[in-house]
Amino acid sequence: MIFTAVKADGVQINDITARAGVFNQEEVDCVAELWQDYLTYGVPDCGYNFIVEREGDKVLGFACHGPRDLTQGVHDLYWIAVDPETRRGGVGRRLLTASEEAVRQSGGRILIAETSGTPPYESTRNFYINMGYQAEASIKDFYSQGDDLVIFVKRL
Amino acid sequence: MIFTAVKADGVQINDITARAGVFNQEEVDCVAELWQDYLTYGVPDCGYNFIVEREGDKVLGFACHGPRDLTQGVHDLYWIAVDPETRRGGVGRRLLTASEEAVRQSGGRILIAETSGTPPYESTRNFYINMGYQAEASIKDFYSQGDDLVIFVKRL
Repeated sequence: MIFTAVKADGVQINDITARAGVFNQEEVDCVAELWQDYLTYGVPDCGYNFIVEREGDKVLGFACHGPRDLTQGVHDLYWIAVDPETRRGGVGRRLLTASEEAVRQSGGRILIAETSGTPPYESTRNFYINMGYQAEASIKDFYSQGDDLVIFVKRL
Repeated sequence: MIFTAVKADGVQINDITARAGVFNQEEVDCVAELWQDYLTYGVPDCGYNFIVEREGDKVLGFACHGPRDLTQGVHDLYWIAVDPETRRGGVGRRLLTASEEAVRQSGGRILIAETSGTPPYESTRNFYINMGYQAEASIKDFYSQGDDLVIFVKRL
């Protein structure tokens, strides 16, 4: 079931990010920083909404979204990750659907997911396409030489 | 002449933003926030590089750029504005050239300028095109309904 993340989820969130297999150390550290801001300042001040799917005490996956500054109603899906041991159970789909619902309820119009154009991210890109996202924009060699940015957009 | 911005430039930077004529209050406040971070934390911690063109004590324009997290060598041009009373004197061109030079010197590969697709920003878009930027990506209705995001990219 999907819940708003609480402090006790932090260790498992960081652990899932580290074990996900697609994030480099800078990205793992970035999730930890956003999580720290979420705990320290709360959503109204930091803008990062963390949700988890939990089964008993076990966190199966998490997502983090928040409003984009200077826009009316654009939200970013900053992170979404599912425990590699529990993939293909629909956890990612439920986390993304819940994020979209939360964005919609806060008056958001658009959810944006930025990801990489490289082969290791092919299943991620297919996931967004299957969830109704369109690859509306791309910037070549963005993350690094040969690693394009792909901007997936869903109008809610 | 172009200088690294110092504390005394702050009042004029905020004044230029307010009088520029294209920025709304949220955008004016955003410049002020970035400026405050620049003074409080310094460039290494906040990532915002402010430069000004100054003639005597008078600030004619300013620009602010910084590295994009999670990329290797992408920098954002967060803000560029010229005093409306001194436009067409090449201030914008010199500020942007100096920003590109600073990005290049810090090892940056790409400078990105995000702007609006609306008519009031037509001269801004032409400015980037004349400076060698390409409109590589766009997201419809981004800032608000009818106000598209246009992402200008220059490879340095």
